[in-house]
Amino acid sequence: MPERSAPVGVFDSGVGGLSVIKALVERLPHEDYIYLGDTARLPYGTKAKSTIVRFSIENAEFLLSKGVKLIVVACNSASATALDALRARFDVPIVGVIRPGAEAAVQATTSGSIGVIGTEATINSGCYEQEILRLRPGAHVLGKPCPLFVPLVEEGWLDDPITRQVAERYLSAFRAPRVDVLILGCTHYPLLAGVIADVVGPQTAIVDSASTVAAAVEGLLLRMSLANDTNSPGTHRFYVTDLPAKVKRIGRMFLGIDDLSIELVRLGSN
Amino acid sequence: MPERSAPVGVFDSGVGGLSVIKALVERLPHEDYIYLGDTARLPYGTKAKSTIVRFSIENAEFLLSKGVKLIVVACNSASATALDALRARFDVPIVGVIRPGAEAAVQATTSGSIGVIGTEATINSGCYEQEILRLRPGAHVLGKPCPLFVPLVEEGWLDDPITRQVAERYLSAFRAPRVDVLILGCTHYPLLAGVIADVVGPQTAIVDSASTVAAAVEGLLLRMSLANDTNSPGTHRFYVTDLPAKVKRIGRMFLGIDDLSIELVRLGSN
Repeated sequence: MPERSAPVGVFDSGVGGLSVIKALVERLPHEDYIYLGDTARLPYGTKAKSTIVRFSIENAEFLLSKGVKLIVVACNSASATALDALRARFDVPIVGVIRPGAEAAVQATTSGSIGVIGTEATINSGCYEQEILRLRPGAHVLGKPCPLFVPLVEEGWLDDPITRQVAERYLSAFRAPRVDVLILGCTHYPLLAGVIADVVGPQTAIVDSASTVAAAVEGLLLRMSLANDTNSPGTHRFYVTDLPAKVKRIGRMFLGIDDLSIELVRLGSN
Repeated sequence: MPERSAPVGVFDSGVGGLSVIKALVERLPHEDYIYLGDTARLPYGTKAKSTIVRFSIENAEFLLSKGVKLIVVACNSASATALDALRARFDVPIVGVIRPGAEAAVQATTSGSIGVIGTEATINSGCYEQEILRLRPGAHVLGKPCPLFVPLVEEGWLDDPITRQVAERYLSAFRAPRVDVLILGCTHYPLLAGVIADVVGPQTAIVDSASTVAAAVEGLLLRMSLANDTNSPGTHRFYVTDLPAKVKRIGRMFLGIDDLSIELVRLGSN
């Protein structure tokens, strides 16, 4: 049984999962966090399932070597593909990003019409739709890939007239009454939540996967008596498998901190 | 010695190299073409050099199994990394995209100040700068990654107000007299040549790597007496290693033809 004082581990194929770290720190500030971004092998979404499972196991083994008590899979492709394999192999609780988002959307919808936006790989996989239909058979799910949103976030063009025009073009189909809930099914998108909410209007609730995952982690830690009971602020350590200049810049933007220290590690065959 | 009637082979990590096919067909309409897009393993730019070399060899072996007389490496990362390995291993002429673009830019510049735009991987690799400085020591090379251009092209937003605003933000530094030549160092960018030329203005010459490669291929085929001497229009066959829905849509857009038939092949470990 892990210790309450052990850190929470989070992995993603890149830096997008830092939005989950940000939401976790806001909700659970006394936990310590270990983050791994597998930047050398991204993107996962376009790879074979067996490859995504293998990479996910290597990522989880790395986090477990750092003594984590719980693992958050902050990557949509790995959440859709590798959760069962990870749970079969490792004893610590494993939390993905898809089910918490789908649950929050099903709770929030009145009409049963739910929108999902994400990368092309996430939307084409139908992973949110499957989870929503499992929770609420008969729900209507409208998915749309928004491939410009990730590079817009990575350029730092967050509150920007160009981003607003792109959002208007992508999201016109998600205004009420077409859907009453919109899931941000990509860990980059919370940084665009303001623009997205403006565009779809107040009648469409936004479900942000980062904060729903943080809520799920809090619930799990409390139920399993694994929440850190210290009163001091937690620590954070960030690892990536490749460290181009943009990773630090984007990491600082995601976390809103300037003195971000990131360590390079080598995993598997990279 | 290959036959004059043998096809020309072109490979890329994805569909961008289809802009090279289009330029080749315009310049050399009597040749037959075999195209391979390694869509299952893209992008190459973020991968280790040894991996890019291995993938490039597998791609070349596939094209040679189809009897090609010449191979165009229509991928910037493979051109920067794998040309020597390919030339050492295979007997057919191998043409990359970087040297023809660099040569055309050096011929076109008066001031010696040359701009290069491309993906983050291409610009950070410095491959165009090295080639330009080898051809013209003392040249001043100004590189800028334009990460939104590829997804804008793949969305089909070519002559579009959003694309124009993005181009204005990226390219303001390339207006004369800062540079007098701008190299489009990515095979997606020829589709944005009109917008890019408008934004940088008539004092900055645009060097489009697709048409410079086509000119290099024509010169090589003539010098080696390998040009097809038929009068009938050539044929084209397109292969990819993964075939999501978007590949056909984007392929049609690149080539400007509606009845595009693409075959799926499996290479190496995919």
